[in-house]
Amino acid sequence: MTPFPDLESLLALVPPADEGASEAARRAMDQKTKPRGSLGRLESLACRLAASQGTASPRVASPVVVVMAADHGVAARGVSAYPPEVTFQMVLNFVRGGAAINVIARQAGARVVVADLGVAVPVENPGVEDLRLGPGTADFTAGPAMDRATAARGVLQGAVLAGRLADEGADLICTGEMGIGNTTSSSALAAVLTGAPVREVVGRGTGVDASGLARKVAAIEAGIAVNAPDPADPLGVLAALGGFEIAGLAGLILGAAARRVPVVLDGFITGAAALVAARLCPRVVGHLVASHRSVEDGHRHVLRALGLAPLLDLDLRLGEGSGAALAIPLVQSAVRVLAEMATFGDAGVTDSGA
Amino acid sequence: MTPFPDLESLLALVPPADEGASEAARRAMDQKTKPRGSLGRLESLACRLAASQGTASPRVASPVVVVMAADHGVAARGVSAYPPEVTFQMVLNFVRGGAAINVIARQAGARVVVADLGVAVPVENPGVEDLRLGPGTADFTAGPAMDRATAARGVLQGAVLAGRLADEGADLICTGEMGIGNTTSSSALAAVLTGAPVREVVGRGTGVDASGLARKVAAIEAGIAVNAPDPADPLGVLAALGGFEIAGLAGLILGAAARRVPVVLDGFITGAAALVAARLCPRVVGHLVASHRSVEDGHRHVLRALGLAPLLDLDLRLGEGSGAALAIPLVQSAVRVLAEMATFGDAGVTDSGA
Repeated sequence: MTPFPDLESLLALVPPADEGASEAARRAMDQKTKPRGSLGRLESLACRLAASQGTASPRVASPVVVVMAADHGVAARGVSAYPPEVTFQMVLNFVRGGAAINVIARQAGARVVVADLGVAVPVENPGVEDLRLGPGTADFTAGPAMDRATAARGVLQGAVLAGRLADEGADLICTGEMGIGNTTSSSALAAVLTGAPVREVVGRGTGVDASGLARKVAAIEAGIAVNAPDPADPLGVLAALGGFEIAGLAGLILGAAARRVPVVLDGFITGAAALVAARLCPRVVGHLVASHRSVEDGHRHVLRALGLAPLLDLDLRLGEGSGAALAIPLVQSAVRVLAEMATFGDAGVTDSGA
Repeated sequence: MTPFPDLESLLALVPPADEGASEAARRAMDQKTKPRGSLGRLESLACRLAASQGTASPRVASPVVVVMAADHGVAARGVSAYPPEVTFQMVLNFVRGGAAINVIARQAGARVVVADLGVAVPVENPGVEDLRLGPGTADFTAGPAMDRATAARGVLQGAVLAGRLADEGADLICTGEMGIGNTTSSSALAAVLTGAPVREVVGRGTGVDASGLARKVAAIEAGIAVNAPDPADPLGVLAALGGFEIAGLAGLILGAAARRVPVVLDGFITGAAALVAARLCPRVVGHLVASHRSVEDGHRHVLRALGLAPLLDLDLRLGEGSGAALAIPLVQSAVRVLAEMATFGDAGVTDSGA
């Protein structure tokens, strides 16, 4: 099924950003009827898309939002404001089109693909991709969330999905997730991979109270102490502190990059997945766009580690890919400016050189 | 032609924001399948649209971008990086669809309306609304940019255009402008109306160099000294330091608000027009949305005076309405979340109350 015999084969396929395409896009942008640089970050975004797609004429005609869902053993530690069954309920809500991500993706003209990486009760629905690794991770406060082979399998399954979407024409992949307990997993990953103190990378998730926050910190500290993951071994860190959907997302990101399909990150959880991907293969970063700055405290550490600046700062903390989908029109505007604007020559507009 | 016998009649028609509609929208938002408040500023944006439109079910199905253009006598003082003929050239570019605003509006599904408020050479083209007040303003370093009656006429003409667009179904109006020299006029207006020191509200516009910047400061200081406008008389300030397109934009904003059509501001120049409108009628502010934070230094003073926080911060400094048009999908996403998302009850999702 998978075209990648192993993880190394996948990583070898990720191309570097194409600096030549980026420079050609910049030169073309500088001939457009506007003061040079006056579209600010929209211009650098267009060049980034050019570098990822490997062409001075990038296009975003078929954006896809992939929402990966799974349950987390650590949820039993009382780390979330919501009970675990909400993961299953929300997956059905995604399939029926009633969630925020469905509405925002509709507005952006993007398809939504929902994948079950390991919801406690299988979501057996034709609208859900079955990429299950099990009925939720183990509680990482008592040992690894999953074994190393399962983590690798999750990454490869995510990459296979990205490849299939690329085959179907996707030219931008937005990342989304659902999983009660997954900010706890993401904070643990962020602490280990960035070296930041646990308290600086833990936030209130979907709205846990002060005692829940204390339980979250305690669970993460226990998980790190019990598993003692090696920060230089990203797959080992992922297996220890996991999240099946985070494994799948890391693979989705790598698989998209391998096909030169740029990836729009959502908030903290997809950022943690991207950080795992980037530690496995630093070249992946040239294919990433950060959509928004999450309210979640750890997100700034993750963005800094990735070297990315987000486009939006709207105090979002929902997840699902909602921020990534909100950024789609910005990405599309950026590439269309490059493709469709008149040049000074075309339009007979005086170019002062400013 | 105008349904307003005078400015006072127009101002009397501007309704206050409907707080009841806003509260009803908030209650509806709190039943949607997401942690309360987790869509951050998108939620408050939906409530703001509800308050402006006067309904708990706001809609944005027919956004229109209005680009008002005019020339400025003060451009003769060497305050811009571009020669004045670029105003005319760019209006033709707008009509032909080759400018940044055309591309971004196309992406957002918005109609672009171009109005000539007083370009030096009339843009006689069926695609341009003729709202001309003259062949450009007088140089305000030597006396008022326009007389008071002309300023009032410009405001009323802008309001009439807004009314016609509302009749045609516009449910969101985005403001845009073009006019070589108009950041100089806007800085002068901002200095007088906010009380900020001239140097704090002057920037590089489309890219003037250091000596141009010094000429800009000198021109503004001369204009304020010569005209000695009274900050408590916004129409007098507008006439003195003016900008025909700024007069038209102030009227467009007031006229839209009078019809409960929310207005999306672009950057510094449209912000200065909104500040004139708000000083004429403070109720107008409840109908405004700030799209982006401009690179132009004076913009933060204008936004603070209006009490508005921008949605985007993308280092834009183009104008034309480009930032306002980029915000359209955010506004549409906000109102669609309110209209289309499932509730906890609909979707069978457990509501923890978080």
